[in-house]
Amino acid sequence: MKYYVGVDLGGTNTKIGLLDSEYNILIEESIKTESKKGPEDTFGRIWLKIQELFTRISVDISKLEGIGLGIPGPVVNKSIVKIAANFSWGNDFNAKEVFEKISGKTVIVENDVRAIALGENLFGASKGYRNSIIMPIGTGIAAGMIINGELISGNDGAAGEIGHISVDLEGDKCGCGLTGCLERFTSAPGIVREGVKVLQKEKRGILYETFKDCLDKLEAHHIFIEARKGDEVAEIIVDNFCNKLAYGMGVLINLINPEIIVVAGGLAKSADLIIAGAKKHLPKYALNMSINIPIVESQLLDSAGVKGAASLIINKK
Amino acid sequence: MKYYVGVDLGGTNTKIGLLDSEYNILIEESIKTESKKGPEDTFGRIWLKIQELFTRISVDISKLEGIGLGIPGPVVNKSIVKIAANFSWGNDFNAKEVFEKISGKTVIVENDVRAIALGENLFGASKGYRNSIIMPIGTGIAAGMIINGELISGNDGAAGEIGHISVDLEGDKCGCGLTGCLERFTSAPGIVREGVKVLQKEKRGILYETFKDCLDKLEAHHIFIEARKGDEVAEIIVDNFCNKLAYGMGVLINLINPEIIVVAGGLAKSADLIIAGAKKHLPKYALNMSINIPIVESQLLDSAGVKGAASLIINKK
Repeated sequence: MKYYVGVDLGGTNTKIGLLDSEYNILIEESIKTESKKGPEDTFGRIWLKIQELFTRISVDISKLEGIGLGIPGPVVNKSIVKIAANFSWGNDFNAKEVFEKISGKTVIVENDVRAIALGENLFGASKGYRNSIIMPIGTGIAAGMIINGELISGNDGAAGEIGHISVDLEGDKCGCGLTGCLERFTSAPGIVREGVKVLQKEKRGILYETFKDCLDKLEAHHIFIEARKGDEVAEIIVDNFCNKLAYGMGVLINLINPEIIVVAGGLAKSADLIIAGAKKHLPKYALNMSINIPIVESQLLDSAGVKGAASLIINKK
Repeated sequence: MKYYVGVDLGGTNTKIGLLDSEYNILIEESIKTESKKGPEDTFGRIWLKIQELFTRISVDISKLEGIGLGIPGPVVNKSIVKIAANFSWGNDFNAKEVFEKISGKTVIVENDVRAIALGENLFGASKGYRNSIIMPIGTGIAAGMIINGELISGNDGAAGEIGHISVDLEGDKCGCGLTGCLERFTSAPGIVREGVKVLQKEKRGILYETFKDCLDKLEAHHIFIEARKGDEVAEIIVDNFCNKLAYGMGVLINLINPEIIVVAGGLAKSADLIIAGAKKHLPKYALNMSINIPIVESQLLDSAGVKGAASLIINKK
């Protein structure tokens, strides 16, 4: 029996999962990333946790094939994080080298979205497809693209930044410096921000009545819950979200011509509503030959990060 | 010495070129495509012309390694034209099979834009780059994408349709059925159509005075010529064109993260103006880390179609 570890490194928390050779997650835990203590400290604690997990399931660590690491930011050569913006570890940070030195194991590093794309492609919703796109929608939105069976990283590891195509040139400034980015609309913070505008204009319905005095408490899932129940204003907010998302999907379809799109990420729990809405608007943006492309829900859901990271090692063979 | 043939099949004319093993075009001719007579007739005449060209340069046809065929429309498996819209040869037309039967030679078929991308990558402006995008701008606009050294075709051979991302949702209907497509602005007919609107509004300058009574005679090159001379209204028209083009480039850069973009096609004669204008607007649309990407002129220019097609055979080895 062989074992694999997937590490989903986040700005705040890091998920660590241990998989068997049938790719089941045997055990999984989170630790605080605390990147400010430096990469040696963070990776040291991750490695301690991995060893502890092996001990807890009574498996010798020598059976560990390797560690896959999913990390936000542009990654090149499956090793170097070009801009480790969320971790203050500087630019051109060689995560592979640091972690291999600490663990003595093979480490493969990839951008977290691309790791998820690979995971869904090996074990999930896009299994068996040679041309697939994963769109994780959560804090932001991005596209993990697999073309001809290969992950697309781009020259600086920065491919797939669909969240930063401009969809509203008169719109707000995005954190990236551009204006009216897709991500300003089609993300969890985005639907809340746009939703508040709609609520303040419409001033009606259950969503409005519930949050009118505490709009700062409104979260994305509140909007989807009320839309599902039929609150008209919540439906408008979701429809606006889906319209912008369909634009992004249309761009991806016309440029990449994939076989399937998978909706993943923090908002994937509402994927049925999101997909139905996106399909409704898609004919405005995608070439006619492609409008019937399957758009489906993530199958890995909450385990996508860990399984995706582990798949970097599994796929290596 | 080995010889290669590149065939650039167009809706009206078909260019046929014969290359030696140093990839120089030895001889080149055009024939009428006359696709209505059927594919056997067209390919039969192309094959006769190829034989004639070999005779004219006193080379035995047995030295022909193979024929590369660039053809507009979605092409899969380097053989089948999914939708031969310009040729009325039906859908799923197996151009490779038909032409191999007639010629007895190896034939490799590819979408014409992708053939050009390969040609520039082997012999031209993007030589040596593993991640490059060619944008031929002429009757339309498209993107030939090479990622990790591989041509990107997409699942139905329809990748690269940057011309049909919507940039003006309130705009005119495009021939493809969508609204406000990039191609409506950033093509030869597009700049003329938008240019006429600007001329009718501004009613001043040399371009206006020259064409005010014969606006139907205005062509793209007239606009670029007057812009180069400093006619203010022509400069506005070119600037609008470049702004929209920069948007398309920004989308490509953010999604594909290429190393270089090559401007090709019928308007490439004005590539210096086009590139300068696009670079000016690019920071509005491309992520900051990528705004200094080289954007350069095609080196193959008028021979891009033939050399690109021939490169399908040359690259095979």
